Amino acid sequence: MSIRVTVWNEFRQEPSDPVVHAVYPDGIHAAIAAGLEAAGGFTIRTATLDEPEHGLTDAALAATDVLTWWGHGAHDEVADAVVDRVHARVLDGMGLIVLHSGHFSKIFKRLMGTTCDLKWREDGRRERLWIVDPSHPIGAGLDETFVLPQEEMYGEHFDIPAPDELVGISWFEGGEVFRSLATWRRGRGRVVYFRPGHETHPTYFDDNVRRVIANSARWAAQDRGARPTRGNPGPVEPPSAG
Amino acid sequence: MSIRVTVWNEFRQEPSDPVVHAVYPDGIHAAIAAGLEAAGGFTIRTATLDEPEHGLTDAALAATDVLTWWGHGAHDEVADAVVDRVHARVLDGMGLIVLHSGHFSKIFKRLMGTTCDLKWREDGRRERLWIVDPSHPIGAGLDETFVLPQEEMYGEHFDIPAPDELVGISWFEGGEVFRSLATWRRGRGRVVYFRPGHETHPTYFDDNVRRVIANSARWAAQDRGARPTRGNPGPVEPPSAG
Amino acid sequence: MSIRVTVWNEFRQEPSDPVVHAVYPDGIHAAIAAGLEAAGGFTIRTATLDEPEHGLTDAALAATDVLTWWGHGAHDEVADAVVDRVHARVLDGMGLIVLHSGHFSKIFKRLMGTTCDLKWREDGRRERLWIVDPSHPIGAGLDETFVLPQEEMYGEHFDIPAPDELVGISWFEGGEVFRSLATWRRGRGRVVYFRPGHETHPTYFDDNVRRVIANSARWAAQDRGARPTRGNPGPVEPPSAG
Amino acid sequence: MSIRVTVWNEFRQEPSDPVVHAVYPDGIHAAIAAGLEAAGGFTIRTATLDEPEHGLTDAALAATDVLTWWGHGAHDEVADAVVDRVHARVLDGMGLIVLHSGHFSKIFKRLMGTTCDLKWREDGRRERLWIVDPSHPIGAGLDETFVLPQEEMYGEHFDIPAPDELVGISWFEGGEVFRSLATWRRGRGRVVYFRPGHETHPTYFDDNVRRVIANSARWAAQDRGARPTRGNPGPVEPPSAG
Repeated sequence: MSIRVTVWNEFRQEPSDPVVHAVYPDGIHAAIAAGLEAAGGFTIRTATLDEPEHGLTDAALAATDVLTWWGHGAHDEVADAVVDRVHARVLDGMGLIVLHSGHFSKIFKRLMGTTCDLKWREDGRRERLWIVDPSHPIGAGLDETFVLPQEEMYGEHFDIPAPDELVGISWFEGGEVFRSLATWRRGRGRVVYFRPGHETHPTYFDDNVRRVIANSARWAAQDRGARPTRGNPGPVEPPSAG
Repeated sequence: MSIRVTVWNEFRQEPSDPVVHAVYPDGIHAAIAAGLEAAGGFTIRTATLDEPEHGLTDAALAATDVLTWWGHGAHDEVADAVVDRVHARVLDGMGLIVLHSGHFSKIFKRLMGTTCDLKWREDGRRERLWIVDPSHPIGAGLDETFVLPQEEMYGEHFDIPAPDELVGISWFEGGEVFRSLATWRRGRGRVVYFRPGHETHPTYFDDNVRRVIANSARWAAQDRGARPTRGNPGPVEPPSAG
Repeated sequence: MSIRVTVWNEFRQEPSDPVVHAVYPDGIHAAIAAGLEAAGGFTIRTATLDEPEHGLTDAALAATDVLTWWGHGAHDEVADAVVDRVHARVLDGMGLIVLHSGHFSKIFKRLMGTTCDLKWREDGRRERLWIVDPSHPIGAGLDETFVLPQEEMYGEHFDIPAPDELVGISWFEGGEVFRSLATWRRGRGRVVYFRPGHETHPTYFDDNVRRVIANSARWAAQDRGARPTRGNPGPVEPPSAG
Repeated sequence: MSIRVTVWNEFRQEPSDPVVHAVYPDGIHAAIAAGLEAAGGFTIRTATLDEPEHGLTDAALAATDVLTWWGHGAHDEVADAVVDRVHARVLDGMGLIVLHSGHFSKIFKRLMGTTCDLKWREDGRRERLWIVDPSHPIGAGLDETFVLPQEEMYGEHFDIPAPDELVGISWFEGGEVFRSLATWRRGRGRVVYFRPGHETHPTYFDDNVRRVIANSARWAAQDRGARPTRGNPGPVEPPSAG
């Protein structure tokens, strides 16, 4: 059965910034969608900030198993009502894959409860990512380490709750390390953070990066348990004789 | 060195509801403060909703190592600006102990990123709490299980992130279980949730409950690591020769 | 693609004890295998203690994606060489589902590093299991709680490492709670512990129990990352110019 | 109250290998003990492999709150009976700090349940350790990162269970990363692994390393909950009337 993925992108720099346009002429979302398409098993749509309701209507979210999120300079322009809606949908069971500068998105900060702040440096030097949990399906088909020859640096401390699963750690040439691939559960939802993806580098055309995103989407779309009931129920067991 | 604790209480039902007043004539905060006083090693002040800025000014928080939080019917009346301030102070290193119906407080929901919803029943029947992590200092001085003869029931699913440490689980006569004593780290802050404490039962006079709160305050006040630096630093290691 | 499951059983009480024989005339393994067969998607074989090498030769393990383990009175008769072999195969990527009294098996204790001790009482009273992680695929298709009308009691403290994922907690009529459904990763392997299954009750014919076992087998058989390399490699990045 | 620490050392290379002797003329244990002595608050004894029962008699362990462990080439010479004894004492509540090549000690492998294997390279180049949990008391008094100018490299994948708390990650000049500072709970015991400490470098004279060890000893010596009871108890709650 096909997994329904909505690839969300801020899509502001690609049309306006020639450097970014040269790398992603159709937008970062198009490159991510193409990677998922090539992996197979997904029904993909895209959505961007400047669409009505950012392309994330109730109907769109209801038809989404996994949402990927890339944003950078316009986090504040994402309407709170849409953030509330995405948040509720994650807790209800949607998967969410937050990419790169999406660490500062409203939805990620809402789900984490922390600032999600970090160190960064746009030096376009090497990133080397190591898989530290070889039992995890997100690492399937990857070698134990892979390199991105040019990337932005993100360094610890990354202000996130301790991940439920820490899958990958990055090494940077300038001396930094970073928890680059990690997961959390929130309600019935499953959340992945994956670090690489600076807009001036062709990261979303990289085979390893595409594989991580496809694996993450499969992981985030797994079956769920029942929706819990809430409120003020009567006892489910008879009172004691005591 | 004394640990500086601020005991915060909504303090609305104690003056106005005769049943609650009979149990906590001076307020729930007074009972919690008395328990900490008896344990020793704490410098205690109290603060309540109807004080200016809810008694939680910048200066008050700066002088607080650990904040305990009890609220019930007036969560919405806590000003967002104060919630922001408490949130920032927790991430900066303050301890926070959230008690009972405080599960629905703005600050707990903000830190957890989830609804913090649950099942509940005010039947005043037995709660039995089991310590499931005997290595944890929050359980020091307790037996492996203790009973509260009359309490409100809270039942799973409790919509929280998986705790960093699950210390205690409650059994209820009506057939429910609950993760009643748990911890999380957020930034440099340390957070405890402790379930018992319905306003119509003398729970905060109970020796075991008082011991858990005092132990939690000591745990939440432990030394921290350095404040991380953020922003856009240069490399800390020289570039490779490659 | 079919998941290859080996259902292992001590198979000593079923032939010899009339009470157990009446419940499981063909052995507990036959009941577990029948449940997996009914769920579909599995290629199932069984193995028992009194077979040569307990039915767990190198070839058998190499052809096993997930091993389920039920033992009770003869843990000490499992040869250490076979335990070593199963241990190595788990770390290499096999799934392992430890059932009920298998908590005291050599392989579970080896993987956990603790005594795996607990409280127990054969009173045949009610067990009620609550799913506490509704995002987990092991709970798929279950209600948020289910009952086994007659079971042995297991009570905390259960001497295990804190689970990587705590999926279910049991309530017992006698006042106990238990972390009944939990997972751990060890190397490339994925381990599940599932509590119910006393030999005098028809637990392995129960629909909910069968569903948990089938879901667990699917979860434990998920794709893995690459086998890590070890030893004494040269640097993967060039030395710094510093 | 003083924390009773036993500093255990294999103590084979220091007398026999001139390079090691030049760095640690009195043994690695003496350097570790001196660091704890300087930190204050500890009552320290040392024990070594070639003492009777390796200096780890029942009486010695009973009088030990925290045991530190350094071994390298003679792990196999540690008697299984002593390993059993240390294991039981950890589960009963002793703290254990495993240092550097102690990752391959029998006691660490027993407690972890995995191979504890890793990559290594004796190139004496730079290690940079980053604190990734600024809320943890083990990081108290440290900067957010510190450097060891010459150390052996250890690289991922480190075959350990996911830590209960991941406190520090190392960066190595050759491109590797490593989970260098981590904790686990086992029974009532608290376990720390701390990576640096190759015998040919003066690591145990380094101020930051000494601070981590002293902080770890304090953390591992914290109060515990009650010893759980086991066995076959009667119900603690009266049977239901149902």
